[in-house]
Amino acid sequence: MKDATLTEVGSALKAAHVAFLSFKNFSGKKKAEFLRAIADEIEALGPELVQTAMRETNLPEARIINERGRTTGHCRMFADLVEAGSWVDARVDTALPNRMPAPKPDIRKMLVPIGPVVVFGAANFPLAYSTAGGDTISALAAGCPVIVKAHPAHPGTSLLVATAVTKAAGRTGMPNAVFQHLFGASFEVGQALVKHPLTKAVGFTGSLAGGKALFDLANQRPEPIPVFAEMSSINPVVLLPQSLQTGFAKTASMLASSITLGVGQFCTNPGLILAVEGEGLNSFVAALAAEIKKAAPGTMLHQGIADNYATRSQRTLTQQGITVEAQSNEAGDAAQGRPMIVSVSAKEFLKNPLLAEEVFGPFSLVVKCADRNELHTVVNLLHGQLTCSVMGSEEEIAEYESMINVLVEKAGRLIINGVPTGVEVCPSMNHGGPFPATTDSRFTAVGTDAIKRFARPVAFQNFPNALLPDELKDGNPLGIWRVVNGEFGK
Amino acid sequence: MKDATLTEVGSALKAAHVAFLSFKNFSGKKKAEFLRAIADEIEALGPELVQTAMRETNLPEARIINERGRTTGHCRMFADLVEAGSWVDARVDTALPNRMPAPKPDIRKMLVPIGPVVVFGAANFPLAYSTAGGDTISALAAGCPVIVKAHPAHPGTSLLVATAVTKAAGRTGMPNAVFQHLFGASFEVGQALVKHPLTKAVGFTGSLAGGKALFDLANQRPEPIPVFAEMSSINPVVLLPQSLQTGFAKTASMLASSITLGVGQFCTNPGLILAVEGEGLNSFVAALAAEIKKAAPGTMLHQGIADNYATRSQRTLTQQGITVEAQSNEAGDAAQGRPMIVSVSAKEFLKNPLLAEEVFGPFSLVVKCADRNELHTVVNLLHGQLTCSVMGSEEEIAEYESMINVLVEKAGRLIINGVPTGVEVCPSMNHGGPFPATTDSRFTAVGTDAIKRFARPVAFQNFPNALLPDELKDGNPLGIWRVVNGEFGK
Repeated sequence: MKDATLTEVGSALKAAHVAFLSFKNFSGKKKAEFLRAIADEIEALGPELVQTAMRETNLPEARIINERGRTTGHCRMFADLVEAGSWVDARVDTALPNRMPAPKPDIRKMLVPIGPVVVFGAANFPLAYSTAGGDTISALAAGCPVIVKAHPAHPGTSLLVATAVTKAAGRTGMPNAVFQHLFGASFEVGQALVKHPLTKAVGFTGSLAGGKALFDLANQRPEPIPVFAEMSSINPVVLLPQSLQTGFAKTASMLASSITLGVGQFCTNPGLILAVEGEGLNSFVAALAAEIKKAAPGTMLHQGIADNYATRSQRTLTQQGITVEAQSNEAGDAAQGRPMIVSVSAKEFLKNPLLAEEVFGPFSLVVKCADRNELHTVVNLLHGQLTCSVMGSEEEIAEYESMINVLVEKAGRLIINGVPTGVEVCPSMNHGGPFPATTDSRFTAVGTDAIKRFARPVAFQNFPNALLPDELKDGNPLGIWRVVNGEFGK
Repeated sequence: MKDATLTEVGSALKAAHVAFLSFKNFSGKKKAEFLRAIADEIEALGPELVQTAMRETNLPEARIINERGRTTGHCRMFADLVEAGSWVDARVDTALPNRMPAPKPDIRKMLVPIGPVVVFGAANFPLAYSTAGGDTISALAAGCPVIVKAHPAHPGTSLLVATAVTKAAGRTGMPNAVFQHLFGASFEVGQALVKHPLTKAVGFTGSLAGGKALFDLANQRPEPIPVFAEMSSINPVVLLPQSLQTGFAKTASMLASSITLGVGQFCTNPGLILAVEGEGLNSFVAALAAEIKKAAPGTMLHQGIADNYATRSQRTLTQQGITVEAQSNEAGDAAQGRPMIVSVSAKEFLKNPLLAEEVFGPFSLVVKCADRNELHTVVNLLHGQLTCSVMGSEEEIAEYESMINVLVEKAGRLIINGVPTGVEVCPSMNHGGPFPATTDSRFTAVGTDAIKRFARPVAFQNFPNALLPDELKDGNPLGIWRVVNGEFGK
């Protein structure tokens, strides 16, 4: 697959801009038809898509089929959302011409799409966070044309999905260039896409280095634009002391599954386990170690990721005070990730910032705290995360209220007695979090609210009813939820 | 007033962080008491506040009294908003333990405050956009402690208001350091405030150079933070040809008032007038010129602003193809801004980017377009704006649908047959817009939605009911609007 030229990048953005000026005014109903057609066309690709994705990513069939379901699922979820129409946060304030000292004008406001969006898909989700992934589908739902830069690790999968999206656009009457697909293994293509003046927002899922580079580029533009980069998280899990006494075996089993799921290649992989030293923790570590020894190495997404896992995990082993608690009994080959659990004292952890960096793969670090105060200190110094989890009974968690209070500042999602992997696609999901988990903690990458990343409010003052968007017209012809003169209703 | 030292900046942020960890959990009702007390204490300052503000800003008494009303008004508006509580955008998805292939967990989400906020007040609104201005009050309403850097042009006014806010905090039981007030005429104080790791967001109203410098600093931090800078807008007004035939006199009168209001020192001042050449435009310019000649020069906010106005307006006069259409008959003194209207052909305007820069003061540039196509070209190339206005009948505007379609991309607020000055404080207001109008077009600085700048979503998964925030508890004890399993209700 040949990289796009800089001329092709420029032409793509110009075409996207032209598409935007009509697509942005398409009704929710029309956009819903398009999104549902995308789901249908992806399903129509049949086994070829599954086989191609399996071959390019080394992921098993069941996982690819599951991910395809998730992808078509979010197409249909956003179709329902934009067909219902209330996502635009409409507010209507009617005029008070006789108000003193000055009349109040008629003002109405709604969200409108932000403009052409460039999407960089993820290596680890060749379907659900890639070409027709959450970023692409939420941007299209908002009314933004999308240009996808195909992930170089799964170009064939990307091209198949792109064909499906293009076909869906054609048969539902979308404008030309509402969706475009470029190849670009080099940094130059990505850079040109982000720097182009007609690009209005960027979606990215991947490494901290990659996401931060795009964020910096976007902010250095003459006109800065938002970059939604979902990057780096070690998803701390806090095990409370009493819970470990009785529940260590169950917790160990849950965490072992979560750490090794998909060869640890999830952004919500639990890479850090925090607990206070004692018999409970010892029993937990022994049980977790037993599970990890039994877990088989798995072939990673591509050789670069396997190499990176080997380098990162080995680098951790050379750090002061690290103990290897368990490795898989099988070494695996160079393409595989070997599950591994290591531990360190909180004192060493607090001294060594490298230990708080993500090791992408089936790896977790247990931090042993001397006491509750030291646990609190570690929690206070955590970086931003996608998730933080706490294992404990309701009574014990209530005793740790001040720690929970701090954890809320550290993450986009808090979980009680559950593992961070498994990101439900629903209105209440928040897949985001403070930097470096993402570049913008105010938005989610998963769930219906992901659409808000690609929209901005516009107020219409003193508009004749006929010239207003339907969402803001008198009589609420679309029947959406609105705030009218301060009151919710429809 | 002595500048804060860097040690004092550090201490202020540490104290704000401690305050945050308790203040963020205060109920809407408690926060509402605080905000209403701020309004009461500002009113209790009585004539001293009015006199001080008049002396420091050269603004007339009626304007200061009006602005005080606006300030106490937004305190009470945000009090009502947080007492009602629905602003947190609560979403509840209850568990489906028997769902296949995997159970659905219980997930609930709401907006939580982002952390300590640093506010840089505006010179041109010593009350409504300054110490207890929209940024401060919306941040406090969200649950964020605020550190205000007093504007060096009105230190006495700022200190008086700060005393009122501190008194209100004390008598309503707010944590220490929920509000702090520092002086800092030097750039170093502002820089230190923005760079401090405990600062989580910044509000700014002022020049493009100032806002952009803070934005860049914030993005270069190890942990980037959002900067809401409301900066630069020339608020184009498009006069459609037919409307000029019959309505030129009324339009000229409205625009003359808007251009000269408050010596043109509003961010929504109409600094650019676009129209197609012809008899209608000639009549309009003649009528506008007559009004501007009669308008008296006014003393500007401070000498720096008066000097800047003189420099910028004189620089415009030296540009190719500029015609002075009218100046005030009175020259005024060096502290005053002399109303002035100039004109230029669209051809020259399109060649010279300097002509699209803001001239802060009672100044407007009429751009004469050869025909409708040229008008469209000028509109296509406009920078981001707070507002764009169009004057025309409903029928004529409908003919210009494609131009309106482009204007939506250029501004945060569109106005039909009205002037951009006069920013209503209400749920439907959007005071924001694409860069360089602001650094973040996705948020408003005025109206109830301004609170969203200082909040981020957090999801709570599998939480026992007792450990959830009240906003997310079963049975909706606060009676707020929520989306429960996809359905709006309360």
